[in-house]
Amino acid sequence: MRLRNNPEALDHLKDHDDIVYINPVGMKGKWRTCFSDQAAPLYIEIGMGKGDFIIENARRYPDINFIGMEKYTTVLDKALKKALREGMPKNLIFLKDDAVRLPELFETGELDRIYLNFSDPWPKSRHAKRRLTHPSFLELYKSALKKQGKMIFKTDNRNLFEYSLVTFANNGFVFEDVCLDLHHQEGYEDNIQTEYERKFSKNGPIYRLEVSVKGEENG
Amino acid sequence: MRLRNNPEALDHLKDHDDIVYINPVGMKGKWRTCFSDQAAPLYIEIGMGKGDFIIENARRYPDINFIGMEKYTTVLDKALKKALREGMPKNLIFLKDDAVRLPELFETGELDRIYLNFSDPWPKSRHAKRRLTHPSFLELYKSALKKQGKMIFKTDNRNLFEYSLVTFANNGFVFEDVCLDLHHQEGYEDNIQTEYERKFSKNGPIYRLEVSVKGEENG
Repeated sequence: MRLRNNPEALDHLKDHDDIVYINPVGMKGKWRTCFSDQAAPLYIEIGMGKGDFIIENARRYPDINFIGMEKYTTVLDKALKKALREGMPKNLIFLKDDAVRLPELFETGELDRIYLNFSDPWPKSRHAKRRLTHPSFLELYKSALKKQGKMIFKTDNRNLFEYSLVTFANNGFVFEDVCLDLHHQEGYEDNIQTEYERKFSKNGPIYRLEVSVKGEENG
Repeated sequence: MRLRNNPEALDHLKDHDDIVYINPVGMKGKWRTCFSDQAAPLYIEIGMGKGDFIIENARRYPDINFIGMEKYTTVLDKALKKALREGMPKNLIFLKDDAVRLPELFETGELDRIYLNFSDPWPKSRHAKRRLTHPSFLELYKSALKKQGKMIFKTDNRNLFEYSLVTFANNGFVFEDVCLDLHHQEGYEDNIQTEYERKFSKNGPIYRLEVSVKGEENG
């Protein structure tokens, strides 16, 4: 998600450096120390946008630690402001960084789960490498996730979903669940919507894919 | 597909035993001998129903040999009558048998391609084993197909397609292509419709999955 750049946003993020990590160095393998319950599972949303999804997750699941990751300063600041306004959950931190930096940011197997919601579809073939479900990104996720760790991907973009089914299937993920109409299928009542999802789901189906990293039990 | 049983159908099939094989024994590894071009690729449709799809394929692709397989006598006889009426293509034969018999019917790697169209969805979980995309069937297909041989699956049943994406992904097939709205997507203009597809595609999307058997080049 892009917004008009707000020059004051970066300063505001820096004012909250206890809960906002900006292109951090030296955090690899140490993210659990940011939270009071260091034994809790660690979930991340990559590209959280304005944060509705991750903030509601943190609220609803206090026994899980959450990282909301977003590369755009102004967008991240929107999420921060929202969280501060509504009460920042203690089990949530924000991370301003780019998904390409995952190997510098996370130790192998450090994450229990990755959420990817309504990523930029980059519809032109020549931009396929920028899609967050391109094989090169999937390798980064696989490495950051623990064995049997899950990845959950939602989108309303049919072509991106078709593309992603192929890349996930062919790059060593186990398919746990596919849903081709998330808002009209029983069994997904606990779905937490993103701000984008609430706005655009009236235009067509929301697609959802749940995969896991091969491990001893599901490989 | 089921129809009211026609007691004369079996006799009619037997009258055409040059082009209709009824629960054959001893054909394993020898199907190519049924055709004038024994070097041509061999494609099969499992559960061809009234045969529109496979007959049109045989007509359109004279350099490929086709087998239309159907387990219901009365249904197969409908396909036979249609083919005879319109002119039976020389590169097409019919096979009355059940998919569970694939290992007795086909040598390992004997088939170049399998089509599966609008199979019975068997919606209840306790009937999952009857779905033609259940893992136990996928093993049979994988064995009958040559390495890198393709399998193309179409359905309008969302739940069956969701289920099948999972089973194909987790049972050693390579995903070649996924289409979540076959009739409204560019690039599939050569799609040959089944009789069912023509009738029901107005009710919602037709889903299509193209996979291949892992081989040296795509594994």
